[in-house]
Amino acid sequence: MIIKGKHYFTIWLNPSNQKCVQIIDQRHLPHQLLIEDLCTVEQVATAIRDMHVRGAGLIGATAGFGMYLATLQVSSCSKTELMKSIIRDGELLMATRPTAVNLEWAVKRVINAIEKTKDSQEISMVALKEAMAIADEDAENCRRIGEHGVSLIEEISRRKNGETVNILTHCNAGWLAFVDYGTATAPIYAAYNKGIKVHVYVDETRPRNQGAKLTAYELGENGVSHTIIVDNAGGHLMQHGMVDMVIVGSDRTTCRGDVANKIGTYLKALAAKDNHVPFYVALPSSSIDWEIEDGVKEIPIEERGSEEVKYMSGITKEGKEESILIAPSESPAANYSFDVTPAKYVTALITERGICKADKESIQRLFPEHIV
Amino acid sequence: MIIKGKHYFTIWLNPSNQKCVQIIDQRHLPHQLLIEDLCTVEQVATAIRDMHVRGAGLIGATAGFGMYLATLQVSSCSKTELMKSIIRDGELLMATRPTAVNLEWAVKRVINAIEKTKDSQEISMVALKEAMAIADEDAENCRRIGEHGVSLIEEISRRKNGETVNILTHCNAGWLAFVDYGTATAPIYAAYNKGIKVHVYVDETRPRNQGAKLTAYELGENGVSHTIIVDNAGGHLMQHGMVDMVIVGSDRTTCRGDVANKIGTYLKALAAKDNHVPFYVALPSSSIDWEIEDGVKEIPIEERGSEEVKYMSGITKEGKEESILIAPSESPAANYSFDVTPAKYVTALITERGICKADKESIQRLFPEHIV
Repeated sequence: MIIKGKHYFTIWLNPSNQKCVQIIDQRHLPHQLLIEDLCTVEQVATAIRDMHVRGAGLIGATAGFGMYLATLQVSSCSKTELMKSIIRDGELLMATRPTAVNLEWAVKRVINAIEKTKDSQEISMVALKEAMAIADEDAENCRRIGEHGVSLIEEISRRKNGETVNILTHCNAGWLAFVDYGTATAPIYAAYNKGIKVHVYVDETRPRNQGAKLTAYELGENGVSHTIIVDNAGGHLMQHGMVDMVIVGSDRTTCRGDVANKIGTYLKALAAKDNHVPFYVALPSSSIDWEIEDGVKEIPIEERGSEEVKYMSGITKEGKEESILIAPSESPAANYSFDVTPAKYVTALITERGICKADKESIQRLFPEHIV
Repeated sequence: MIIKGKHYFTIWLNPSNQKCVQIIDQRHLPHQLLIEDLCTVEQVATAIRDMHVRGAGLIGATAGFGMYLATLQVSSCSKTELMKSIIRDGELLMATRPTAVNLEWAVKRVINAIEKTKDSQEISMVALKEAMAIADEDAENCRRIGEHGVSLIEEISRRKNGETVNILTHCNAGWLAFVDYGTATAPIYAAYNKGIKVHVYVDETRPRNQGAKLTAYELGENGVSHTIIVDNAGGHLMQHGMVDMVIVGSDRTTCRGDVANKIGTYLKALAAKDNHVPFYVALPSSSIDWEIEDGVKEIPIEERGSEEVKYMSGITKEGKEESILIAPSESPAANYSFDVTPAKYVTALITERGICKADKESIQRLFPEHIV
């Protein structure tokens, strides 16, 4: 995707030092585009935990590269010792964010590839190849989600005789949350590129404002018409026919279609249901947790620090980054990062293999290799 | 209610200059307690429009005092001239906030009182008396709402064998939104004073954060246990049984029980319904609009400036008040201030005359004088 006219991915190997990867430190967007080098597993863990990078796909891709960096940090000649150290590093990475399932998936995928390698000399090469494959597949899956999802937008556009299709999205399931394209945004970019008139209502997405800070930024940089709204506003817009469809992402989807996504998603799904607005969830199958059914009961919901609720960061009139206290300093605050939208509120899932209903049978029909 | 151990109302006649009223300029809370003098109708209009004061009851009370100040500003001896000027001032005040029905109600009530006055010399006295009556009744009605509403909290407390009753509220329908006690908070304060264990989840209430800035502040100053959450979190809490009841206020209630309240209220009502959590609306009858039925279709929803969404104010580490940009400067933002919760999602209304179902018959049974 495009920033100031230049194409970017969200993570890439440092071209002048292949022992480091580079990321956009997203904490400073939209005000500053800062590129950060990650050269150790610890740096990768910090970048994921403190949300320099975030979003289901990008967390997975970054963890994959983190495992590559892990292989560079061990010098033992014994494969057993080496694996022990690499697995320990994998555990460090997996502990950074509990809800996103891509994290565990990516770490285990690189470990599996390493385990199969006979020649210890080749371990780093194998890990790098696997990490790059994870990143490439992530981008490719998002591109396909766009290809499939655009049909839903086209259909509404036809029904409205070419009038603007109004889409509401929550948080950032854009290209900044993946390696490229995004999930929720992929059909939007695809529609925009086909010349379909689209307009996006962007939920600001408290407490970290990934909507206002990241989704609005990437839509703006890529020329897509949009309006930022507070998270409270979506119900009112839907009551007044101002939203034609909702598309969100997913951090973990259960095998029956319950969706863990950024806190507040569930409220939008309820409003969509109440106002007969279709509610779509776009996701690569890497974010499906095939082991669990009941999302509300079984998905662990990350709790983060109260300072994310009580402080807000942005820039002053002078352009200086500043963090301000926006609540009584003595008041406690709770900070749940995700909620679960039960499958019954999801109109359909948009995956890299096509669109399906949010139920076990329909999901398994698209991904038969996961039938146990 | 109490701030730093001292009793306050939210509006009062300046004791040393009875040609001015004094208010707490709520824009600076919780960081600073600033008292402001309002001595002209124009100052009152600005204070209401720019939200130095806000909240259904306090807007009404302030408008009432504004009409008193209006009478001090006219010197004509002709009653016709005088009434013309006063009515013009009333229109200025009524144009400041379109959704709150108390505003129009209070302005018209003072005008009615003035119109009945024969002696032109007495007009200011009559207007002041009426304004003070509006304020006193507002406080008294809120006190009664507390008396009636506390029974609902007691019932849950009994059912939970005295365990803490968890109440979620949205925006500030606290004493800062009225003259004293508040509406949504009145039953909570009453329960707290009776020694019932209560804990309040306070929605921060974007964009102006009246929850985090005002409700958390007043609960804290009055010793009530509370936790600030982002507006996105309520659904998750309800899914996990962490909320026993919701109590919110109302800026305008239709005669059949549809409720216009701060934007986002509707989303909480949907989540309450979905999770079998009772959803109560506390309101004085002055906020009932007896003329209309369908809130979604008929209540005008105020739209405010986009800067309220794109900028956030608070204090820096150095204690300085600062406003920061929290979104791309080029991105547009929309700012709808209220939404309407259809009566079917309201478990009951808590009024100064008692608790009733949110339907026309039940409301009329409590307020038979409004049957047309």
